[in-house]
Formats: sequence, structure tokens, C-alpha cells
Amino acid sequence: MRIALLGGTGDLGEGLALRWAFHTNHDVVIGSRDPDDAHAAADAYAETVAAHGRDVKITGFENGMATDRADVVVLAVPPYHVAEVVDSVADGLASDDVLVTPAAGVQRDEHGFHAHPPGAGSVTALVADAAPDDVPVVGALQTLPAGRLADLDADLGIDAPLVGDDGRAKDVVAGLIEDVGGLRAIDAGGLANAAEVESLTPLLINLARNDDDLADLGVRFR
Amino acid sequence: MRIALLGGTGDLGEGLALRWAFHTNHDVVIGSRDPDDAHAAADAYAETVAAHGRDVKITGFENGMATDRADVVVLAVPPYHVAEVVDSVADGLASDDVLVTPAAGVQRDEHGFHAHPPGAGSVTALVADAAPDDVPVVGALQTLPAGRLADLDADLGIDAPLVGDDGRAKDVVAGLIEDVGGLRAIDAGGLANAAEVESLTPLLINLARNDDDLADLGVRFR
Repeated sequence: MRIALLGGTGDLGEGLALRWAFHTNHDVVIGSRDPDDAHAAADAYAETVAAHGRDVKITGFENGMATDRADVVVLAVPPYHVAEVVDSVADGLASDDVLVTPAAGVQRDEHGFHAHPPGAGSVTALVADAAPDDVPVVGALQTLPAGRLADLDADLGIDAPLVGDDGRAKDVVAGLIEDVGGLRAIDAGGLANAAEVESLTPLLINLARNDDDLADLGVRFR
Repeated sequence: MRIALLGGTGDLGEGLALRWAFHTNHDVVIGSRDPDDAHAAADAYAETVAAHGRDVKITGFENGMATDRADVVVLAVPPYHVAEVVDSVADGLASDDVLVTPAAGVQRDEHGFHAHPPGAGSVTALVADAAPDDVPVVGALQTLPAGRLADLDADLGIDAPLVGDDGRAKDVVAGLIEDVGGLRAIDAGGLANAAEVESLTPLLINLARNDDDLADLGVRFR
């Protein structure tokens, strides 16, 4: 499987790239608006993985070219950019690809962080609206702690809930999640249930801010 | 400490009553609209706890009388009843009491369960608006699986996030939570952060509905 991480130079992109490169044999492709940034990040990630004893090739391309090459495209970009990025890469998406959205709409005020979904009801719904009709969309990975993913020595032992209306696409994404040691994929239903998954993100931030011994939190359902 | 569980004849009330009676020396008082129902539930719970080797006294009263007797009052009633119940017991609430609200606004459609907060923004905010100004309100216990609480043989190993603006009241509730073996209290910030905690409830239901091996779910942040 070839996985493109659009916005792969950011924190979540880094964490996912390192984990998939380290734990699996999938091809990891870093996408960025600037191909030089993509190359540099890809090289740096490959070095980190090599330092942990695995020799892997990670490539870097402009977002559109990364999408052209990929079977699974992960939109690791801020929520206010997802629609624009989907538009810019739409030509490279085919009906047998899978588009994955890990973003959550979050707003901060003086009390803490709050769910702040876009008008579509969730970032996942926004992506589904922006994507070509025949390309399946899966909402997933929203609740993963980027810093812990990027630390290949860190234990995970956490869950990734996912939503989607296309069973094959969900199975593909669930498989990629479970290929990473310590991650469990769990099904939260259809795209219409995305907002409840995305609401976990501000809660995780609030808990980490208010509890001294909790940081870079994930969640385990049990 | 004397804990009144208003609506204590329901599933969550039963689970909390059994756990506090079994694991602690606190006085557990069951409240209901009908005092006969409250007595009957209290007797049944005491029998269950006795069958697990602990001889405890659990009492039952009409909600208002249960409130008069209690230091901590838990509103284990459906979200659409909380304001009315708070009004009906307000005279029995004092500034050194603590009012705890475990309800979450949830709506079901053909896709699954969704957060459906009242106009106040959260059930917790609704309770805070309805309560006398000097009575501290804590939002907590929303994410606990009632059936697992009620099964005294079941392991918990789960978290209870709580929100509130009064530090003493939060400490009291956190202490009551941690008095139950297998429960951890974690601070999610002020009352303004309640909606993010309450949103977990529909997500837990969606996960249990979509994953065959997950039922009566709780959550652990790690």
C-alpha cells in the first residue's frame, strides 16, 4: 500500500509517517505545498527510522504529486485548509483510493478548548462534501497524540475510532491503524457520527491542561 | 459523607449506589419521586451488597427528603428532568453541599447517537443555572457504564472526567470517585468545558453498537 501524508511536514504527519515507516512495509510519501519541504521532511524521517534500526525509503513530493502516487491519502492539514487542499488534489484521487481526514475543529477560549465544527457538522463531513463523489472518505486518527507517535520508543496502547460510509475504505484504514503496534482501530459508525469522534480532541487537550500527570494523551475504550 | 442519589432507582443510580455502598463507608441514600420506590430500591441494593459480603445500611426517601439529609447530591435523572428536579429540591441544598450532574444530552437518529446539548450549552450548565447561586455544581460520572458499575464482580479500570468552577466541590467529588476501586477522577477544567465531556456519551454508545466485542464501555485516558 502507498500512503500519502498531505501536510506531512506537520506534527501529526511526522508521527504517522514515522510509525508507518517503522512498523510496516507500506510506502510512505510525504506531501507538502512546497516540494523542497516535503523532500527535507522525508529525509529527516527516514534518518529517524534508520536510527531505530530500520532502513526505509520515504519520499517527498508536492501535495498533488504525492496524491497521484498514493492508494491512501491522509489530509494531515489544519481543519481550515482541508477543503482547499482536497480541491487542489482532486484530479489525482480515484474511486479505488481512500481519503482519510484526521482533523478536528477546535476553538480555544479563556476556559479551555471546545469543539468548533464547521458548518457541514464535522471536518469529516466537510471533506466528504469537497471530495469527488466516487472517492470514499474515512474520518480517523483525530485522537492520536502526535508527539507520542513521533517518539518511536513510546508505548501507545490506545485506540483510533473511525467513521465512514464505505466498508472497504474503512477496512483499509482500520488495517493501516492496526499495522502500527499498540494502536487499535474501532468502528464509530458512518460519516454522520464524525462529530462525536472529533469532539474528543478538545477534551483530550483540556484533560492534559488540567492534570499535571497527563500529557500527550490518547484514549482507550474498555 | 452522606450521598443522595436522586433518581437512584435508575440504572446509573443503581450502579453508583452499589459501588459506593460496597467500596466505601459513606452513607448512601436513594432518592425517588415515590418514597416507596426509593425504599424498595435501597433494600434491594443493600441485599446485593450483602451477597458480596458487606453488611451496609442503604436508606430510601422522596427526592426532597433525600436531599435534606445529604452532603453530596447526585442528579441521576434523565437530562430533560434535571431542571425540574433541581427546582423541587432547591430548598434542601446548602452552600456546603455539592450538586453533581452525570447526565448528557443525547439524541438518536438513523445513523447513531449524537450530542444534543440543551440551550444552555450542556446539561451541566443547565443544572448550574437551575441551582441556587451559592450551591457548587460539578459535572461528572457521565461516561461511566451503568451495567458494569452494578456488577460488583466487574473490573472497572476506567476514568471519570469532571468539570466544575469550585475547587473544594471538585475535590469532594474526585475523592468519592477514587474511593471506588478501579475508578480514576481526572480534571477536565471548569463548567464551561462540560460539553466536551458530555459528548463522550454518544460516542461510547456508537462504539458499542458498531464493535461486536465492545459493550458497556468506559474510557481510560493514557
